[in-house]
Amino acid sequence: MHQSNAAEADAYRHIDWRGDALRLLDQRKLPAAEVYVTCTTAAQVARAIREMVVRGAPAIGVTAAYGVVLAAREALQAHGRIEAPALAQPLHELGEARPTAVNLRWAIEHMRECLGDGGAAECLERLAARARDIHEQDIAANRRMGELGATLLQGGAVITHCNTGTLATGGYGTALGVIRSGVAQARIERVLASETRPWLQGARLTAWELNRDRIEVTLICEGSVGSAMRTFKPQWAIVGADRIAANGDVVNKIGTYNLAVLARQHGVRTMVVAPTSTIDPRTPSGAQIDIEQRPGGELLAAAGYAQDPAGVQVWNPVFDVTPATLVDAIVTERGIASPPDTRTIAALLD
Amino acid sequence: MHQSNAAEADAYRHIDWRGDALRLLDQRKLPAAEVYVTCTTAAQVARAIREMVVRGAPAIGVTAAYGVVLAAREALQAHGRIEAPALAQPLHELGEARPTAVNLRWAIEHMRECLGDGGAAECLERLAARARDIHEQDIAANRRMGELGATLLQGGAVITHCNTGTLATGGYGTALGVIRSGVAQARIERVLASETRPWLQGARLTAWELNRDRIEVTLICEGSVGSAMRTFKPQWAIVGADRIAANGDVVNKIGTYNLAVLARQHGVRTMVVAPTSTIDPRTPSGAQIDIEQRPGGELLAAAGYAQDPAGVQVWNPVFDVTPATLVDAIVTERGIASPPDTRTIAALLD
Repeated sequence: MHQSNAAEADAYRHIDWRGDALRLLDQRKLPAAEVYVTCTTAAQVARAIREMVVRGAPAIGVTAAYGVVLAAREALQAHGRIEAPALAQPLHELGEARPTAVNLRWAIEHMRECLGDGGAAECLERLAARARDIHEQDIAANRRMGELGATLLQGGAVITHCNTGTLATGGYGTALGVIRSGVAQARIERVLASETRPWLQGARLTAWELNRDRIEVTLICEGSVGSAMRTFKPQWAIVGADRIAANGDVVNKIGTYNLAVLARQHGVRTMVVAPTSTIDPRTPSGAQIDIEQRPGGELLAAAGYAQDPAGVQVWNPVFDVTPATLVDAIVTERGIASPPDTRTIAALLD
Repeated sequence: MHQSNAAEADAYRHIDWRGDALRLLDQRKLPAAEVYVTCTTAAQVARAIREMVVRGAPAIGVTAAYGVVLAAREALQAHGRIEAPALAQPLHELGEARPTAVNLRWAIEHMRECLGDGGAAECLERLAARARDIHEQDIAANRRMGELGATLLQGGAVITHCNTGTLATGGYGTALGVIRSGVAQARIERVLASETRPWLQGARLTAWELNRDRIEVTLICEGSVGSAMRTFKPQWAIVGADRIAANGDVVNKIGTYNLAVLARQHGVRTMVVAPTSTIDPRTPSGAQIDIEQRPGGELLAAAGYAQDPAGVQVWNPVFDVTPATLVDAIVTERGIASPPDTRTIAALLD
């Protein structure tokens, strides 16, 4: 992986296909530095996903698609042709780069369909076209969700959580896409964003990209969400989703459940924005979903412990489950489920 | 101020009167380092309070009382006697060291009462005895609140917020005192503590002092409070208070209101533990209390911004107001107001 700094970049494109290389904005270094990582091999792309240069399920899917193009290019250079056996290992490595991102394996399967017929040069071109198509379709789905979600907005403030914007997707964003559309249509007067412990995606990424787009944002701690609702009286809490169960229960970044409970208590409606690929019809409800725990050192290091204290345990779940009953609308590229339940969710998938 | 490290300390006494000097544990450096600051003048004590070597309203009151002893000692050395005019400036400086701590001015007034009659040596002795008395009375009040609060506990988990322990008081703690008593009486099975952004007093101080006392603690982010309530089913949320209005509304560290709303939603009861000196009968309700805002840089620096981004505002209130209707019990050294309301609060002050 080759690194270059922002000064060399001609534009802010966080997933930037250059024909023979993929340039990624290193999200681990934001907002302190805008550093790009250039990948010329599939292994480098897999490593970039694994090490979280890029994160956000849709963004990872798009990145992996370009990784498949690089794998094919390497096979062509090494063997003079593009055949499935030579691609097996790099595609497997790409698919395993992150354990839970459904979009990753979905994108690789879609790329695999382009292998086969015709000459190698033609195949390579077809793969590159498909990857660009996956990228563009993701942006188009986000823009469609942005339009649909914005129809639900009636002015005032909104509050969001974590990062669901350009950086988490192919571009534009899911929940943050609705917020972009709402701001563009003057249907939003103030955007509140929670900093989102322990990784601070709200403070590091959401505030950074809204600031880049000249959309004013007010950053708050999670501890002040309730007070902010009393003070700013937001109309909607707008969040993304990592998985949506068949009954409309929503798995999303830790803190979403708090936000939805507090929203309901303050007359704030809750909108979840995610592509239909996020809905898992085989999971009946949130009760069936195991929540990943991350190491406690993430919290202890932030507090400055010289070494982990023996008597201090840390409970550090990555996600939480928000019951469908606390969600007022689920916005997808195919339409809105409102209120979300088994029937309205199934209708979106028909 | 002279600094010494923990290895030199014969015990963990965060406010340690040495007869001719006051030694303070530097809370800004915890938990990474246990460093003590030694003050031999009132000006050094005022500076230690101002710069937050010591924080927590009762702890500041005790510290200031010892500061008055040092002021008298300085006057005696300089002028050969202890008279009010020589003390005016140092006592004023001590009283102004923090703007909102009522205990600070309360302690200085109590010390001032000891001036006057008799010889200088006698006066100095009387002042030192009064300061030790204020310190011991604070610990005794905390132990009394601990006993009273523990009677409300019936096993299971509890959850607390910020730091209300030894470090915030003369010793033992308010809310954390109830937790210490509850653990000692086997009325608590698990202690959950939220890290408490943006200063992380829960992670830095509460976890540190419970670990020192060999009380196991489970640290969580504020974002996972609701999920932790679903998972660990705590019996009580136990917090301190910075001010209590006449109707029982509670001003406390930002995040307390969220905690109380989430507690009510999950069948968790909320207990506020504070000495009666925290009750302000002249403030009818929380609506009359202005909430201090701190600089946004506290959140932006944590997120790693190289410079404050122009389009990112920060809303960073230090406290929030929890309505009395969300509080199940207010525990003081004089008894328990349950449910807290104008009548039960007034009864405590009679």
